[in-house]
Amino acid sequence: MTADPLTDFSRLCVHTITTKGWELEEAVERYDEAGVSGITVWRQWLEGREPSKAGDRIRAAGLKVVSLCRGGFYPALVEKDREEAIQDNKRAIEDAAALGAPLVVLVCGAVPGQSLVESRKQITDGIAATLPLAESLGVKLAIEPLHPMYADDRSAINSLASANDVCDELNHPLVGIAYDVYHLWWDPDLEAQTKRTAQADRLFAYHACDWMTPTTDLLNDRGLMGEGCIDLRGIRAMVEKNGFDGMIEVEVFSNRWWDKPTSEFLQAIKQSYLDHT
Amino acid sequence: MTADPLTDFSRLCVHTITTKGWELEEAVERYDEAGVSGITVWRQWLEGREPSKAGDRIRAAGLKVVSLCRGGFYPALVEKDREEAIQDNKRAIEDAAALGAPLVVLVCGAVPGQSLVESRKQITDGIAATLPLAESLGVKLAIEPLHPMYADDRSAINSLASANDVCDELNHPLVGIAYDVYHLWWDPDLEAQTKRTAQADRLFAYHACDWMTPTTDLLNDRGLMGEGCIDLRGIRAMVEKNGFDGMIEVEVFSNRWWDKPTSEFLQAIKQSYLDHT
Repeated sequence: MTADPLTDFSRLCVHTITTKGWELEEAVERYDEAGVSGITVWRQWLEGREPSKAGDRIRAAGLKVVSLCRGGFYPALVEKDREEAIQDNKRAIEDAAALGAPLVVLVCGAVPGQSLVESRKQITDGIAATLPLAESLGVKLAIEPLHPMYADDRSAINSLASANDVCDELNHPLVGIAYDVYHLWWDPDLEAQTKRTAQADRLFAYHACDWMTPTTDLLNDRGLMGEGCIDLRGIRAMVEKNGFDGMIEVEVFSNRWWDKPTSEFLQAIKQSYLDHT
Repeated sequence: MTADPLTDFSRLCVHTITTKGWELEEAVERYDEAGVSGITVWRQWLEGREPSKAGDRIRAAGLKVVSLCRGGFYPALVEKDREEAIQDNKRAIEDAAALGAPLVVLVCGAVPGQSLVESRKQITDGIAATLPLAESLGVKLAIEPLHPMYADDRSAINSLASANDVCDELNHPLVGIAYDVYHLWWDPDLEAQTKRTAQADRLFAYHACDWMTPTTDLLNDRGLMGEGCIDLRGIRAMVEKNGFDGMIEVEVFSNRWWDKPTSEFLQAIKQSYLDHT
């Protein structure tokens, strides 16, 4: 199963962290010039800015605000820290609403040495505590299952099945999943779980990049699409067969690409989007 | 659920690669002096040696030969390379028999860009092709499911469920699983799959180490037991509850530890075995 090539940029969204050499204003201007259609704003890019004005600026440039990235990190050893995390997530939801982002992406968190079962419980409780606010502002929350190599301190939700389980437990139309090929590509259960995700109307976001061989850094050695081994068109075919037709968000953390001029990187993103995504 | 501390070294086995500063002869002598009970020999340690004589020497020192490490790497893009891998695995089985190792550990292999489904088929076929020889020599074959971060080029079998599936397909009493906490600790399905493994009488080997936060190298930054976040006594309790009472094999790839004197490392292994394993 393989998807047809993408032939235009109407579904191309870029994360501000991908082009981290640019502040928000420059990113917006350059994305617009390049024909990129959407932007996912990382919270650092809102620092010192009014989210509502940032949103206006983005829309004025003709770009769609796809997501705010990221909330999460609910688990902690003590109650006080968990409460702080909930407050921080409420701020993220308020910022998303002001920015006009329909969605907050959640990197759910984990505490080294705390059991993953306990961390998942704290994640579920943390999300539940922010749901009334999310509801009142109409902001969706997307759990991003992370690759198992981040189970120590970044997320206790390490498979699409596990993310679906938490969604089932919360059972709320605003709670869904951010589906990132980097975290999920290896999973033998991916096809069945993709179907489960889509059938529950919770495939909220789709992130693309690639897996490098060798990977020299656990965080910042992602590949641009086509540089690695992920069957990108196979996975896209799988989500599209299940009805997904949303934005394709390029989220590449790469010291190698970040060392190059950002405009060169954006050109490479566009090319790899057409050739390999 | 947590296991009682280990109070002696009767189940302690060390992999020769853990103490890679020592050649086989020195490792045998030092393990014996230290009261280590078993040794898992990596194939490089047999280079230039007669396996049968190496086995005699190990047994003369009172050590048990636990495994030969490692066969596997079956998948390849072309038939000729897959055939070569099968021949190499046959040599490993012959060497294990000559050494007196009851078991060959299999790091099953993967090819970047080839689908994991196809790689798993090639792995299954590859193991099947060596089974008549393994049978005639009475050598067991233990599939080691590897952490999903090795799904690109080291193994297409990335969970205990997946290893059990391949075992079910081969359905042979000599085919089982090498259970390594480093690869499996994050899995939400671990308890059920551990039970499935044990009930099928295929929990052939148990490897211990720890997961470092942060992990700075995908291959050679494992922790000594207690240095990281793995719930070692919880997992040991889980396998023991299911009847496992075999050797506990310390397999630590660590540039950090390898930079220290090997005798200091072995002392630390013994201490962490008592204190944290």
